[in-house]
Amino acid sequence: MQLTAEKIVERITEKQYAILRDELNEENPIDIAALLSEIPENSLPVAFRLLAKELAAETFVEMDSESQELLIRSFSDNELRSVTEELFSDDMVDIIEEMPASLVKRILATATSETRASVNTLLRYSPDSAGGIMTLEYVRLLPTMTVSQAFERIKRTGVDKETIYTCYVTDTQKRLLGVVTVKDMLLAEPDLLILDIMETNVIFTYTDEDKESAAKIFVDYGFLALPVVDKENRLVGIVTYDDAIDIISEESEEDMQIMAAITPSDTPYLKTSVFSIWKARIPWLLLLMISSTFTGLIITSFEDALAASVALTAFIPMLMGTGGNSGSQSSVTVIRSLSLDELEFKDLFRVVWKEVRVSFFCAIALAIANFVKMILIDMLLIKGNAISLNREGLLVALVVCLALAVTVICAKIIGAVLPILAKKLGFDPAVMVNPFITTIVDALSLLVYFFFAKTIILS
Amino acid sequence: MQLTAEKIVERITEKQYAILRDELNEENPIDIAALLSEIPENSLPVAFRLLAKELAAETFVEMDSESQELLIRSFSDNELRSVTEELFSDDMVDIIEEMPASLVKRILATATSETRASVNTLLRYSPDSAGGIMTLEYVRLLPTMTVSQAFERIKRTGVDKETIYTCYVTDTQKRLLGVVTVKDMLLAEPDLLILDIMETNVIFTYTDEDKESAAKIFVDYGFLALPVVDKENRLVGIVTYDDAIDIISEESEEDMQIMAAITPSDTPYLKTSVFSIWKARIPWLLLLMISSTFTGLIITSFEDALAASVALTAFIPMLMGTGGNSGSQSSVTVIRSLSLDELEFKDLFRVVWKEVRVSFFCAIALAIANFVKMILIDMLLIKGNAISLNREGLLVALVVCLALAVTVICAKIIGAVLPILAKKLGFDPAVMVNPFITTIVDALSLLVYFFFAKTIILS
Repeated sequence: MQLTAEKIVERITEKQYAILRDELNEENPIDIAALLSEIPENSLPVAFRLLAKELAAETFVEMDSESQELLIRSFSDNELRSVTEELFSDDMVDIIEEMPASLVKRILATATSETRASVNTLLRYSPDSAGGIMTLEYVRLLPTMTVSQAFERIKRTGVDKETIYTCYVTDTQKRLLGVVTVKDMLLAEPDLLILDIMETNVIFTYTDEDKESAAKIFVDYGFLALPVVDKENRLVGIVTYDDAIDIISEESEEDMQIMAAITPSDTPYLKTSVFSIWKARIPWLLLLMISSTFTGLIITSFEDALAASVALTAFIPMLMGTGGNSGSQSSVTVIRSLSLDELEFKDLFRVVWKEVRVSFFCAIALAIANFVKMILIDMLLIKGNAISLNREGLLVALVVCLALAVTVICAKIIGAVLPILAKKLGFDPAVMVNPFITTIVDALSLLVYFFFAKTIILS
Repeated sequence: MQLTAEKIVERITEKQYAILRDELNEENPIDIAALLSEIPENSLPVAFRLLAKELAAETFVEMDSESQELLIRSFSDNELRSVTEELFSDDMVDIIEEMPASLVKRILATATSETRASVNTLLRYSPDSAGGIMTLEYVRLLPTMTVSQAFERIKRTGVDKETIYTCYVTDTQKRLLGVVTVKDMLLAEPDLLILDIMETNVIFTYTDEDKESAAKIFVDYGFLALPVVDKENRLVGIVTYDDAIDIISEESEEDMQIMAAITPSDTPYLKTSVFSIWKARIPWLLLLMISSTFTGLIITSFEDALAASVALTAFIPMLMGTGGNSGSQSSVTVIRSLSLDELEFKDLFRVVWKEVRVSFFCAIALAIANFVKMILIDMLLIKGNAISLNREGLLVALVVCLALAVTVICAKIIGAVLPILAKKLGFDPAVMVNPFITTIVDALSLLVYFFFAKTIILS
């Protein structure tokens, strides 16, 4: 039978600890963490204490930081030590970064001096760098070892390493010489030297490299682990593929949130407080609202044009909406291509030329469709509408369609160019999208519209 | 020195094949594929023939389908065979799916009967299912083997397997019994039975499971490989972590494109033809343009209100814009939570209650900020504007701010609820965002605005 959160609570209430211990210890750490996040806070330490030592540490890593904090507060020093000594240094650092200072002190006080040293090493690197996400637990081999000596070393030390499948070969000064996989070693003769079977063309990253770039190298090449070296080319740690996956998916989440004008956060929606959600959303709404003062001003200054032909007002939302959608289509495409490194600054003119052609054909199709729609729907189908099938109506349709075409072309080019310029100037392109592109495209579409209206209708 | 595309072309022009062979064979398959994609088509087969057999096959897999097709056309049957016999069955299927039928026939004709059987097995599954992305090359062990027998088997057959680090234990009918890693085996005594060290609580997926769900299980648990079984629980293949990473990142790309009203595609922007980009964008632009007929109609039907107070027109874009932004903030958040499985239909009321509170505080902040802005900027700072600081101006400001508050609240609730309902009804929630939510929120914001205008100003 599937273990559920209700079942766990029931077992605890009925003090069936032995049964619950067996049930829990059969599950996977990730599933246990998910189950424990659903039971009441006061049952959490009881259930957690039933886990076997290694499973307890693995489960602890998977829990959210609130539950971790609650557990640490309930732990005796011995219990805390038995969890922390099973943790990899990078997981320990992740946990410490989320904890209040008093708990961090307690965690470090119970840790071994070796663990403390590792944590201090890792804390020196920015959390956004490769150094900040690497782990110190990797298998290091010497080039002069034989394959069977290497296996002996893996058997002796491997249990504490985050991965044993990719081993790193260094000289005695820890300078990175090569990489060798367990697969290569298993398929090689036991008395061959590591030197003879290692791959020397090693792809690595530096401790101060941006973590997103590190994750990308990593995923491009399908590695299980990526070595991280310092400025003297000495191996200091490795990034493992599971951390790379997390970074990649966090990054696209962030891009998506920024594009929707939300300050990014990686807390799940239902766990985020109303105030935090409000705080992430309101600055952008305010900024966009204030920036639309421009559109209001433009409309006011063409008051006479609008008064002369009331029908013109009715098409403002369609025009601004289509302009906005056209712009965001190209900006989102370009922003993603930039963040996937498919595009660089030197491609600017290729991008412009592509958008010029795409937008030209979009503009033609939209203008024709809109002209037909205005005649069929607005003039013929809907009686008593602001425009009818006469000279004035056709002139309005002409103005709307011309403005539409010009707006679509400008919007697409602006939407494609601004993110590339932003990146060149060192800004995050995704942040540009909403406030700047929207404001510019909105203002522009109105100016174009009123220009054509003045020239064609009011002349 | 770094090998570049120019260097390769130069070497070929000067017929320095031996040097180029050495240079190429030092590189990584992914880098070679990238370099070869930049050299002229007529040099491609020459450069490719310089690669060592295994490297050639690994490079081939990484190339884009155009270059693959070009190479296959230039291959003799023997050359084709030497590439295809090195390919894993899942890569072979990926390649075949992109080729014209005549080439597929040639590829299958040169393949061994075993490969042909594997490819035919895989082609039976939908490309969107776990069966469609799995590979047939995995290490299978029997429970009665000892650890050293297992290592013998891995050494004998491992070279052709996509991963050897996770081995699957089955009975003689291939029914999945357990899983054992090379790490477990290395750390165990050589004469222990696989039966005694295998993990029996195996997480697996079915051949007809959706590939996105399979990738998610996989990434949640940090696996290197996930076993795929048929309806009789017989192991048929495995999905490896690199394929899962691709699926996860394609999925968030797709969501992002759909949210920007673009038909999703995974071809890089610069490689997509103008016509393909146009085709991906124009249907949504047309749909959104036509749907804004409603907003035009609403404006027309309140012509008298607008004529009575020209100032009212100036605030339409701000109101519709803020409504749209508020709606997309909550819809994007909810859509991502749905696709990350953080939200389900049963959470509908929790979501509504959360959005009611968030939107209430957003509405208050926006309405106050806008009232202050209208007095300071629109009335006092800008002379000769449509509104001034008098009774009529203040009434307009009141109408705008009340409409703004109500619109923001409605937009946020609609933005959060519609995606959940869409998913419940079996639609892709991301597809809902643009056409439906925008149209509804736009229409609603105008109706609310004109309702307040009629009630407060024209009464």
